[in-house]
Amino acid sequence: MTQTATLGAVLRADAMLVPGEDGSPFRVIAPAECVIDDEGRIAYAGPPRDTSRPTHELTGQVLMPGLVNGHTHSAMTLMRGVSDDEGFMPWLAAVQGVEQGMTRDDVVAGVELAMLEMIATGTTAFADMYHWDAGLLRLVSDAGMRVFAAPACLGAEVVGFPGVSFSTGTEVLDETEALAEQFAGDPRIRLGYGPHAPYTCAPELLRDIRDRALRTGIPVQIHVSESAAEVADITDRYGATPGRHLAALGLFDAEVLAAHCVHLTAGEITTFADHGAAISHNPVSNLKLGCGIAPLPAFLDAGVRLALGTDSVASNNSLDLFEEIKTATILHRGVHQDAAIVRGSDVLDIATRRGAAAIGFPDAGAVEVGRFADVITLDISGAAQAPFTAERLVSHLAFAASGRDVRHVFIGGRHVYADGDYLTLDAAGILARARASAARLRATA
Amino acid sequence: MTQTATLGAVLRADAMLVPGEDGSPFRVIAPAECVIDDEGRIAYAGPPRDTSRPTHELTGQVLMPGLVNGHTHSAMTLMRGVSDDEGFMPWLAAVQGVEQGMTRDDVVAGVELAMLEMIATGTTAFADMYHWDAGLLRLVSDAGMRVFAAPACLGAEVVGFPGVSFSTGTEVLDETEALAEQFAGDPRIRLGYGPHAPYTCAPELLRDIRDRALRTGIPVQIHVSESAAEVADITDRYGATPGRHLAALGLFDAEVLAAHCVHLTAGEITTFADHGAAISHNPVSNLKLGCGIAPLPAFLDAGVRLALGTDSVASNNSLDLFEEIKTATILHRGVHQDAAIVRGSDVLDIATRRGAAAIGFPDAGAVEVGRFADVITLDISGAAQAPFTAERLVSHLAFAASGRDVRHVFIGGRHVYADGDYLTLDAAGILARARASAARLRATA
Repeated sequence: MTQTATLGAVLRADAMLVPGEDGSPFRVIAPAECVIDDEGRIAYAGPPRDTSRPTHELTGQVLMPGLVNGHTHSAMTLMRGVSDDEGFMPWLAAVQGVEQGMTRDDVVAGVELAMLEMIATGTTAFADMYHWDAGLLRLVSDAGMRVFAAPACLGAEVVGFPGVSFSTGTEVLDETEALAEQFAGDPRIRLGYGPHAPYTCAPELLRDIRDRALRTGIPVQIHVSESAAEVADITDRYGATPGRHLAALGLFDAEVLAAHCVHLTAGEITTFADHGAAISHNPVSNLKLGCGIAPLPAFLDAGVRLALGTDSVASNNSLDLFEEIKTATILHRGVHQDAAIVRGSDVLDIATRRGAAAIGFPDAGAVEVGRFADVITLDISGAAQAPFTAERLVSHLAFAASGRDVRHVFIGGRHVYADGDYLTLDAAGILARARASAARLRATA
Repeated sequence: MTQTATLGAVLRADAMLVPGEDGSPFRVIAPAECVIDDEGRIAYAGPPRDTSRPTHELTGQVLMPGLVNGHTHSAMTLMRGVSDDEGFMPWLAAVQGVEQGMTRDDVVAGVELAMLEMIATGTTAFADMYHWDAGLLRLVSDAGMRVFAAPACLGAEVVGFPGVSFSTGTEVLDETEALAEQFAGDPRIRLGYGPHAPYTCAPELLRDIRDRALRTGIPVQIHVSESAAEVADITDRYGATPGRHLAALGLFDAEVLAAHCVHLTAGEITTFADHGAAISHNPVSNLKLGCGIAPLPAFLDAGVRLALGTDSVASNNSLDLFEEIKTATILHRGVHQDAAIVRGSDVLDIATRRGAAAIGFPDAGAVEVGRFADVITLDISGAAQAPFTAERLVSHLAFAASGRDVRHVFIGGRHVYADGDYLTLDAAGILARARASAARLRATA
């Protein structure tokens, strides 16, 4: 951890991804200059100018918007590899076993570890549902990241953590509202209600949240139709599929970010589109846990607001969004046997500009004058990107890049990662604390 | 490029993946020692011994067998990103457009670039179908890699390269036999006949190859049932699906490695199993090109010999097998909505021991006394692998590792990659030549 760079910088890179024209998500500027002003916003994005003096000569690197993770549970980094080869139910039991022993210190350790991994792989903003409190939010803000945090809220039938406040409904909602007020002035922090899912939250709780949301303007994060078993369960209990059930409760009158939506019907997709409800598509998690394959092409056709998410490390086991971008792009091509059905450029757009809007940071997500300077650079000088040409930048980023190629990360103009060094986080201390937490949890699980 | 280390080394790592017992593919030794003898074979694999003096203290690293790429066309690295978002037919036209201008020098540049990427991401052996000649094979052998090379052979209806010998059938077969004889003493080089596919090779050519194979013992590489269009075409032409058609021609009397097999019927899978024909499963390419999803669970159930492949960079766009391992593991779970249907340990086994056997290097593929010392190490000290525990090594490698984590590569005991440095290849020169080749090809395409 070294001193954080002050705002205001002139970055020169071999190429840069900026918003496109005529409906195309991107166009490429090469070579490129990106100027960050003293407020942490982008003041210029274009070809290098004779009048500028670069502060960062990023030769062999390309510059693009920071990635946006539409759905994760960052504290669950502690459960990396907890039970990956035994099927869904043993996995769930193992995860819940670990969670039984989790304390707030463990949540801190997990969130900090997640930030190390997210920053190093180019993620600058994320949506998260787990235990959140003022101290945890300050950790994220101090690290320089943006978070749309939803303190998780479960019905009484689900056992919560002893150390943290998962178990009760209304208390968490009051707390969420207090946090939203407390952090209202911080452009890096956004709060949401976090009802876990239709199958863990009773209709009364969901209706209460809907009413609160209409009153407070606080948005909602929720898991929806992750598995076929959930759809069967909800249909059995309430006589409607999860999307219909939530619609009937009026939840979509609020601003909603729904994770997964693997098994939405065509009618439900229309409902999402009509209400401007956003979906975080999390293909790696959905595949790994055997949940299925969400209909991304139908989401795109219907004009649903979209983000791309990794889900938690326990179900992925990585927070590298470049992996998710490639998987989301190619998966549906295979399913539909159509190599044109999803384009890398569209998924890159979902992972940046569209994702930023979907999780409520519309001023981030693109390298464009006036937006937050949430920008990352990637090394394209190695064999894995060769022969590199700027005209194929989108293709390189969507199909050949890895989070491991990220070299620099700026968020709101603040330099948080420089060539492997964290400028706002104590990596060695965080790794040690995460190891200690995980070891203790293993011993008690 | 620095001096190649001599054979004979004592490697100490935090953990090591060795063959399992009782049907389990792997077990973990932690901490671990791997001793390489003067012949380049593994002399010891077990816990560290007081009597050994380590030559390489690989703290924060894990050791595993080198990865085996079951199907690629390495020269096509030059086409990275050539047409990724426009659908299958525009992609094919673009690739063929580039190939029209390719010379042997370009093939050299592409193969060398592929070796840079493969070595850096932990691949030590690969099966390849393209233009191959003695000079190209010597390049691979000198770099220290193992290749099962099949000089591609197309029917007259397919236009070949002007500069290289793709176009004629019988000549290439004679050449293949001469090369097989010439390299018979090199444990790194194995030759195969390379009939491209049932839809590009006439039945007479395939029968000729089958007869030659029975006489010479030279194995066969071929693409089979990559797309539904191929199945329809072959069924239309010959009244049988591709696998049946090849079986009727007697091709499976030879040793066969078939790429893709996306659309094999249950009966064809049985035929493959019965004849010991091997399949290279290439899920990323099959998804990206919109070809479909091969029935890996059925291949596993039937006991088919299996390898895992990236296919060429033009259809992937990466040679990183760790990506392929994760995709192959999770993809079928999603398709079948069953998180236990494919295990990471099984896919790691296919990418190493089973893959090595399938492409004809049965002495490689595992960290076991007497086998070739084809071993790699990966850094597990960073955030993306934390909290690391040796007991979860398989999970870390199957779900969280990236080829970018590879630190050291030994092949046949020869140290070819050390912490980012290539010990047998001139990386800067290769990158420059690849860039020049690609630029010229773009200009002429």
